[in-house]
Amino acid sequence: MRTPEELIKKIYEEKGKINDVFLTACGGSLVDLYSGYYFVNAESETMHSHWLNARELVTSPSKFLKSGALVILCSHGGNTKEVVEAARFAMEKGASVITMTHNPDSICAQEEFNSIIYSWKDDTNENARPQGIVLRVLNELLKMQEPNYGKYEAILDGLEKADDMVRAAVKKVQNRTWIFAEKYFNEPFLYIMASGASYSQAYGFSICSLQEMQWMDCCYLNSGEYFHGPFECTDEDHLYILLMGTGKARVMDERALVFMEKYGKKYEIIDAKELGIEKIDESVNEYFCPMLFYAMSVAYRTGLQDKRKHPLDMRRYMGVVEY
Amino acid sequence: MRTPEELIKKIYEEKGKINDVFLTACGGSLVDLYSGYYFVNAESETMHSHWLNARELVTSPSKFLKSGALVILCSHGGNTKEVVEAARFAMEKGASVITMTHNPDSICAQEEFNSIIYSWKDDTNENARPQGIVLRVLNELLKMQEPNYGKYEAILDGLEKADDMVRAAVKKVQNRTWIFAEKYFNEPFLYIMASGASYSQAYGFSICSLQEMQWMDCCYLNSGEYFHGPFECTDEDHLYILLMGTGKARVMDERALVFMEKYGKKYEIIDAKELGIEKIDESVNEYFCPMLFYAMSVAYRTGLQDKRKHPLDMRRYMGVVEY
Repeated sequence: MRTPEELIKKIYEEKGKINDVFLTACGGSLVDLYSGYYFVNAESETMHSHWLNARELVTSPSKFLKSGALVILCSHGGNTKEVVEAARFAMEKGASVITMTHNPDSICAQEEFNSIIYSWKDDTNENARPQGIVLRVLNELLKMQEPNYGKYEAILDGLEKADDMVRAAVKKVQNRTWIFAEKYFNEPFLYIMASGASYSQAYGFSICSLQEMQWMDCCYLNSGEYFHGPFECTDEDHLYILLMGTGKARVMDERALVFMEKYGKKYEIIDAKELGIEKIDESVNEYFCPMLFYAMSVAYRTGLQDKRKHPLDMRRYMGVVEY
Repeated sequence: MRTPEELIKKIYEEKGKINDVFLTACGGSLVDLYSGYYFVNAESETMHSHWLNARELVTSPSKFLKSGALVILCSHGGNTKEVVEAARFAMEKGASVITMTHNPDSICAQEEFNSIIYSWKDDTNENARPQGIVLRVLNELLKMQEPNYGKYEAILDGLEKADDMVRAAVKKVQNRTWIFAEKYFNEPFLYIMASGASYSQAYGFSICSLQEMQWMDCCYLNSGEYFHGPFECTDEDHLYILLMGTGKARVMDERALVFMEKYGKKYEIIDAKELGIEKIDESVNEYFCPMLFYAMSVAYRTGLQDKRKHPLDMRRYMGVVEY
């Protein structure tokens, strides 16, 4: 099997310039693709990026989904119907695809899809998981395609350091996750906020870790949008989790924090700066916050699982009934 | 003052080809811009579109924000700090701007911003409100720039018919909104779902009509994403509002409806097809669903206001305290 770097070099050599990068999947896998989307949007001067649900890619295709487009897909189980259809649809349109899956026996693992089969064990390095793979692919692509691109080494260095950073952070918050669960396990509802590259981690924390795995009601918010409506719900009875990232978007998280401190009472701050993100170069560390926050969502949901006695793997519909 | 059509012709003549359209604002005004974003994304073969919070436009600017970009902004009051900053920032980058506001005395109304001052009365026609203005601008632009663009007349016809369609729908649901409020006024939480061009109406219904104007907790969901996590919360105790649009994205809403009927009990269906959307040509009516759903969110929130005795204009923070 080719490495992600070999794969993108092969595609680039075959197809020439890439104009559009589509990052598409469903649910938790879609969340994993957001940092790549945000990275291309912020750094590239030759490529547009798109981030959307795999079924929306097929129902409402952009006319830029054609030769010159690269479509990166992810399906953990590898047979998600919408993802398989999106991959085939993209290929019919002349786009190049890269498909990531954990399942070597799945449809997505077939070679025609330029598949990357990733490991998903406790000790799998962050740079070998989907978020890391996407950054590796896009970093290579930017280097090949854009002479002005100056962050190649910084991203490589970040990919080198990310795993230790995440593991140390997980240890650091262990006790906090227990305290959080002890205080809030019975909360009827909460809001989760983030901004910039990390916005999708508020989304994933909500729809995967809480709604899916804990059947807990919650809502994700963009910290920048919070002040234009949602903050009217804030009071001492409402619970919030605020993910504070780095980069220029952080000003929005900081503004939300000031407001929380003044008008809220029940809020959990998960701050990347306090959790080691600054070991990675300042020019790129905002793109690594999502990895860190994903690990935090796992830590917090595990705390909740243990206290609430609601197994993370319990499902009433997914994989259980037809739909 | 120039009409929207005159304004975009002037910009197009001065600047030549437009490559990127940025639609940016905050909160409810951002919601109004989504149908334009979705329309360009689905129909244009020469332009990319971007939809994002005005502060994110400044903190994480795309490198395509430059000459050749058109930035459409909206601020109802016209002095929203983030929007004013985004407009100035975009102009510094060499982009063209169009700014919509209701307030003729505001910063956004100044001529340097190519301002469009819109009316906002009960009898203001849909084609003279922000959603309509955006479609008018983009429809002209597509016609000028793309010889293959074939929906110009259909959009004009839709803009002609939209107002009657929306008004008839509002009358039709009046009693339903009372019944909804009577049954659910005390509900602790609800989910609102939509897909395609209408996704942002689930967002706006949530963050503006309920979180901001009723201090009611809720969460917006993409109907296509619902099956990849959020549906595990569904049971007979959870309340859902499902906005069913038209166009190819509708299959996602229909799938959600089938699931609701089987596993839910408390759900309100607001179906554009049943509310007159088919008076507008099938090739474009999906782009008019957001107008209709916005009017529905106003109707439902008014029903809730009257039953809950929570005035829609009551604020505890916005315009009341410093933040």
